Amino acid sequence: MTLNYFDHNATTRVDDEVLDAMLPYFQQEFGNASSRHAYGTAARQAVDKAREQVAAAVGVQPVQVIFTSGGSEANNLFVRGAADNLKAGHIAISAIEHPCVLKPAQALAQRTAERWMIRHLPVNQAGQVDIVAARDAMAAQKPALVSVMLANNETGVIQDVAAVADLARAHGAYIHTDAVQGVGKISVDFASLNVHALTLSAHKIYGPKGAAALIVDKHLLLKPLIYGGGHESGLRSGTENVAAIVGFGVACELAVARIAVTAQHTAQLRDRLEQGLVAMGAVIFGAGAARIPNTCYFAIPDVEGDTLVVKLDKAGFAVASGAACSSVNPGQSHVLEAMQVDPLLARCAVRVSFGYSNTLIQVEEFLKAMQKIVISLRAISSLSF
Amino acid sequence: MTLNYFDHNATTRVDDEVLDAMLPYFQQEFGNASSRHAYGTAARQAVDKAREQVAAAVGVQPVQVIFTSGGSEANNLFVRGAADNLKAGHIAISAIEHPCVLKPAQALAQRTAERWMIRHLPVNQAGQVDIVAARDAMAAQKPALVSVMLANNETGVIQDVAAVADLARAHGAYIHTDAVQGVGKISVDFASLNVHALTLSAHKIYGPKGAAALIVDKHLLLKPLIYGGGHESGLRSGTENVAAIVGFGVACELAVARIAVTAQHTAQLRDRLEQGLVAMGAVIFGAGAARIPNTCYFAIPDVEGDTLVVKLDKAGFAVASGAACSSVNPGQSHVLEAMQVDPLLARCAVRVSFGYSNTLIQVEEFLKAMQKIVISLRAISSLSF
Repeated sequence: MTLNYFDHNATTRVDDEVLDAMLPYFQQEFGNASSRHAYGTAARQAVDKAREQVAAAVGVQPVQVIFTSGGSEANNLFVRGAADNLKAGHIAISAIEHPCVLKPAQALAQRTAERWMIRHLPVNQAGQVDIVAARDAMAAQKPALVSVMLANNETGVIQDVAAVADLARAHGAYIHTDAVQGVGKISVDFASLNVHALTLSAHKIYGPKGAAALIVDKHLLLKPLIYGGGHESGLRSGTENVAAIVGFGVACELAVARIAVTAQHTAQLRDRLEQGLVAMGAVIFGAGAARIPNTCYFAIPDVEGDTLVVKLDKAGFAVASGAACSSVNPGQSHVLEAMQVDPLLARCAVRVSFGYSNTLIQVEEFLKAMQKIVISLRAISSLSF
Repeated sequence: MTLNYFDHNATTRVDDEVLDAMLPYFQQEFGNASSRHAYGTAARQAVDKAREQVAAAVGVQPVQVIFTSGGSEANNLFVRGAADNLKAGHIAISAIEHPCVLKPAQALAQRTAERWMIRHLPVNQAGQVDIVAARDAMAAQKPALVSVMLANNETGVIQDVAAVADLARAHGAYIHTDAVQGVGKISVDFASLNVHALTLSAHKIYGPKGAAALIVDKHLLLKPLIYGGGHESGLRSGTENVAAIVGFGVACELAVARIAVTAQHTAQLRDRLEQGLVAMGAVIFGAGAARIPNTCYFAIPDVEGDTLVVKLDKAGFAVASGAACSSVNPGQSHVLEAMQVDPLLARCAVRVSFGYSNTLIQVEEFLKAMQKIVISLRAISSLSF
């Protein structure tokens, strides 16, 4: 495929170094990490090494890493796993959480027994969780669980997780952050965020799909989502996906090693992009807030996002009309709704998310393509009225 | 690694054809299957094709396939997913189920609200679920859910799932079978088994770790274990592990294509092995029952299984002292306990599970190695008494 790939918040290409590290675990060292023979031992050692690499990336001990099959599973493991160890109470989540935090919370709230209550923490028009409102909400209804993402997948806006953590801890609540969009783009340190649990995922950082982790504090008690042979300290059973876990470990090392260069590079591309888009009349969502450096979420008034994505695809540019994960569930972005964006403008939303291999030339070509497409769409639009 | 690998019930080497099919999805067609651009479309088409391949392997429609990250997740999805859609009642499972069926059932039974009751269906001394006892048990306590595996991972004994299904359906219960050890070794047809749900897994059939499926009947209502973006008809959210799913599809095709040859070949190896082991005084567990053709579960009285596994490993043979999955939870095999095997003999249990690439020469070498090890261990054992 020769498209210009501008959709790194959806998923990333597996790095050469990552794939090279993974390959031996499909055919040479293909053992089950629970087996006691040499094949098993080799697999176990590989998983142990990856656990150290993942732990190091966010500044924790290897024992704090629970490997899962993906970020969605890790987020569900926090929400349901923590809730199942507590009496039903309140769970406070930001209004802009990914569906894999929001939906398990809703499922807790729809139970016939042990029914939980959800409190949505509002965001301001820049897409930042409103800390004053969060304080008031938690004071009004003391939460047992809190989850606020580190960086939003659509806007890229960075949340003040440490401030939310302070509020949550003051009420004795467990605080979790979904950091899948943060790792590799900004520095992520478990202790500084002051959380009890944190999610990161391999395929967002040039690792393979099929490996992620929930990082946990020793004070957090969880029940498993998946019971069985007792893998991952009994918290996540199932034969370890050794190759994917090995790839995840290497991807974590590379993400940390490259972060400064990648951040600077993608910020440069993003700034040039936004300069060009604004000149075309675009609105940039979250522009007033600190954002991860690779993400630009914009709208050209009267140019529908879905249409633009299709036209850009034909012109050779892969971008998103919202979160990729919600493309199976079309509808308005709940993130833009929470930011009180006019629904007509929200329908025009398009997300560009850069990776380290993108170039300034690609951005210039993208702006040229955009210019043409917008002019032609506006021409059609003006004809039809 | 140059060991003779005799542990195919634990996991298998990824086939060349499987890996070749997977490779493009790491770097060339690495898209998120939910994305609307060309990368996403390519990934979606690959997942769709694999869904057809998996469905065909067990004789169902593609829409009946729910992809999961592994067999443990699929089994948990049935147990918890079905239970969460019903009023708490009885769940009947065989006494020899894998921990990934047994433990989620125990978790249902340990809830503070909506607490379920477990009924264990006994097996006879050959390791077969006792159909008369199962009928009586279900008549005494009408179950809402039933799960009986198709072939036991330790003994290889094949269960009469269709007969259990008749009993379950007579009570209006949903019936599930964990067929991960059956697929690729014996013919598996969803309709003939008469079940509502069936689990199969890629890494047991020369596919990659990280992909499996729960096959479901349209009458079975499930709640998800993992909520989020609404993937897999809303029953299993999370970015699809495209490469692993593609590998799973190809592995299913190969498993079906090769089954007759593989079954005959591994049966030949197994028969020669058992002839040699019996001559050494071994007891073969489940020998009186129909078994999958690749598995031999034996004990040499007074020769501890764990010790034998270690000695055989050093001699170049990878075998298991029980289910690989329970090696993290050492202790006596619950399967042999259910078969009323003397605990002293059960401690001597060793499992050999062949694959299509094993040879008769390897078996002869194994028997020679066994002979030497058993003689030396018995010499040590007689000295210490």
